[in-house]
Amino acid sequence: MSGSVTVIGLGPGDPRYLTPAASAALDAAQDLIGYFPYVARVPERPGLVRHASDNRVEVDRARHALELAAAGRRVAVVSGGDPGVFAMAAALFEALEAGDPAWKSLPITVEPGITAMLAAAARVGAPLGGDFCAISLSDNLKPWEVITARLSAVLAADLVVALYNPISRARPWQLGAALALAAEHRGPETPVILARAVGRPDEAIRILALAEARVAEADMATLVMIGASATRLIPREGQAPFVYTPRSVAR
Amino acid sequence: MSGSVTVIGLGPGDPRYLTPAASAALDAAQDLIGYFPYVARVPERPGLVRHASDNRVEVDRARHALELAAAGRRVAVVSGGDPGVFAMAAALFEALEAGDPAWKSLPITVEPGITAMLAAAARVGAPLGGDFCAISLSDNLKPWEVITARLSAVLAADLVVALYNPISRARPWQLGAALALAAEHRGPETPVILARAVGRPDEAIRILALAEARVAEADMATLVMIGASATRLIPREGQAPFVYTPRSVAR
Repeated sequence: MSGSVTVIGLGPGDPRYLTPAASAALDAAQDLIGYFPYVARVPERPGLVRHASDNRVEVDRARHALELAAAGRRVAVVSGGDPGVFAMAAALFEALEAGDPAWKSLPITVEPGITAMLAAAARVGAPLGGDFCAISLSDNLKPWEVITARLSAVLAADLVVALYNPISRARPWQLGAALALAAEHRGPETPVILARAVGRPDEAIRILALAEARVAEADMATLVMIGASATRLIPREGQAPFVYTPRSVAR
Repeated sequence: MSGSVTVIGLGPGDPRYLTPAASAALDAAQDLIGYFPYVARVPERPGLVRHASDNRVEVDRARHALELAAAGRRVAVVSGGDPGVFAMAAALFEALEAGDPAWKSLPITVEPGITAMLAAAARVGAPLGGDFCAISLSDNLKPWEVITARLSAVLAADLVVALYNPISRARPWQLGAALALAAEHRGPETPVILARAVGRPDEAIRILALAEARVAEADMATLVMIGASATRLIPREGQAPFVYTPRSVAR
């Protein structure tokens, strides 16, 4: 077998955030696999076969990648952001573990990318300046009780919380429930960042107080960050404030 | 004032992980400020004044950057990894908030980078495939009691834990204490990743069981990841295993 799989992070969308390593891996690929909006970000070229698929078929997509690689193809699997953060890398290793034992001798590499919380944080200041966590709010893959237990734990421990997959048509109420839980642990003025489509032409970033965020609209493309108790604003004249979390915790 | 400050993430070290946006910001800079090993990563060129400083003077460095920008200079402040993750961005906003009010009208931007936990995760598989957190183990800026309370919370909530600043000459015992705490919540076979100098020529990555990791050597350049209860190995013949955390939590 001379094929290979590289799982590639495309970053938040703007090509200026795509690493040279990820670019080179895309250039070397013969087959391109991924959720269709991510496949659409990669320019067409002769010799590159595109396999775009719908959402929520991650393991099918991963198996397809491994099958093609086993047949000798150089396969690129693409994710937005970083492939290791709520994206295709874990799905690929799930498929690898459960699949043909011969797949385990394939060269498999992962090319990291700028994940949404880092891109969103950079846009507004330094909200992740202290300890923080990343939690997927989707209850497709884990029970809602696990999600709320984790949220309660990290809110009580005063971490900044980045919420991935906050909302979708099939999951309309979970973000409101998570912000209600946050309101049990944090004051109403706690900064919340709703960062939509960071690094893309339709980027829209809102910095709201927790009380306002609870009634704000969000969608699938939004990354939500809930500040820690020390997260603060630096107001600026005629511009959005900066948001940052001090590095220190008082003794 | 026509000066500006850009806080730039250099990524893990290999220039192939430096984003084009970060490269462009470095090319535009007139002054380069940072901890000396990060300044040393940026090639010298005419017109670029270098101000390398020692560790632990982050706020002095940030003030210096703001003063130079206020005097009309285009200043780049560099951090390894991502500047918003236990690095210079929060220090800059601390200095901005406490400093000359006129600084608030300066153009200040942050260029994200590949932070160590993403680079390390990509090297070994997908250990951050589920919910995870990033905690700095340094008790220079927060009390040790806060660190252990946070660690206990995230270990009990079964998050993957990335530990930044795990050890230094002045803090020799904290990593051992953190791994002992982990052993109260996780089995002895839980995968622990010790990723040293990822993306640099002296890169060394070890995948150990928690029981082994507790007696392993580490240093300042090491990023430590402690798996969740579901984090698992995929053994491979003649190669290091892959490590991944499944996306699902059983109902």
